[in-house]
Amino acid sequence: MSIHYPAGTKPKRVVTPKKEKKESPLKGRHILSAANRGQSFEDDINSTNEYYRNKDLAIIHKRPTPINIVSVDYSKGAMITKAYFETQSTTDYNGVYKGRYIDFEAKSTRSKTALPLGNIAAQQVEHLEKVLRHGGIAFFLIELARFSEFYLLPAEFVCRFYREKPRKSIPFSDIRTYGYVIKEGFSPRIDYLPVVDLVFLK
Amino acid sequence: MSIHYPAGTKPKRVVTPKKEKKESPLKGRHILSAANRGQSFEDDINSTNEYYRNKDLAIIHKRPTPINIVSVDYSKGAMITKAYFETQSTTDYNGVYKGRYIDFEAKSTRSKTALPLGNIAAQQVEHLEKVLRHGGIAFFLIELARFSEFYLLPAEFVCRFYREKPRKSIPFSDIRTYGYVIKEGFSPRIDYLPVVDLVFLK
Repeated sequence: MSIHYPAGTKPKRVVTPKKEKKESPLKGRHILSAANRGQSFEDDINSTNEYYRNKDLAIIHKRPTPINIVSVDYSKGAMITKAYFETQSTTDYNGVYKGRYIDFEAKSTRSKTALPLGNIAAQQVEHLEKVLRHGGIAFFLIELARFSEFYLLPAEFVCRFYREKPRKSIPFSDIRTYGYVIKEGFSPRIDYLPVVDLVFLK
Repeated sequence: MSIHYPAGTKPKRVVTPKKEKKESPLKGRHILSAANRGQSFEDDINSTNEYYRNKDLAIIHKRPTPINIVSVDYSKGAMITKAYFETQSTTDYNGVYKGRYIDFEAKSTRSKTALPLGNIAAQQVEHLEKVLRHGGIAFFLIELARFSEFYLLPAEFVCRFYREKPRKSIPFSDIRTYGYVIKEGFSPRIDYLPVVDLVFLK
């Protein structure tokens, strides 16, 4: 027997919470994009980095989330019983590619118009400015989730924007102008190394 | 009134546990050396890296310890209530210096003769081999705690030793022959950058 709903309404989907969501607090930090089939941007970048490592193209890892541990139960095999998440004082990703130091942050937004700078911590901007001063390659990987668009935006642009217009958002028009398109693929998902070649190593 | 002890004995020093020891699980990972006044080797390296960052000489950070989070109580402001320590799949430290990628692991030993290779995970050796292949600068900082000696030992040596003699220890004679002495100082404590210059950037 099929059920008829009044026009304009749909049955609510029952969403079963994913088991790993509970185990990994990082999943919640990026809004899921329908475009990439329920996988988060961060998952895609992690799998891309794994692909790069397996193919021996680059050695880039995600830094673990820093955690402030308050109490540990050593009677249970060093089980942490009380702890809090801390803010990363650096970016989330770094490593080495073609002898160069690589450092980047990933941001996903479901906004229709602009990337809120509130997403980017002042200390991350400072960190990226230092990395640039020391000759590292620094950038943001940005997902415009509603448009299924992916960009590499050089840190120079973001840091300058941040200094000149704090508390503002970066309009998508700027991201599309000053950023470089990354083609979404199957494997790797977010193939950003060819863009790094083009932008930083030519 | 002064107290007279029998010859050859000294009053035991009462050591008050430091408050932060409870909060940071990392402290326990390195055995405290009397030589550096109760500070662990790791603390010394962290303060050295902070010194380098403040003086804008290099941007090198310790990677946070990865933690597998089992449960989080969101009613208490995202308090982690159950979690376990995980093994670092990389080394503990990385960053950028003079445009080059830097990656190293710190090891302290109270042995009188050799550094046990059991302290070094196979995946860390693999990671360092990859870093070398990609043109990064990779090494170990080693404290021989009983001798108050500090060495920079290039990863090439450690990886080769590990492949040729797994399950063995690296004799101090090898560390003294193939390693480079780091002079312990007050600030920075473990001034390893001049040695990096000498060994890798000449």
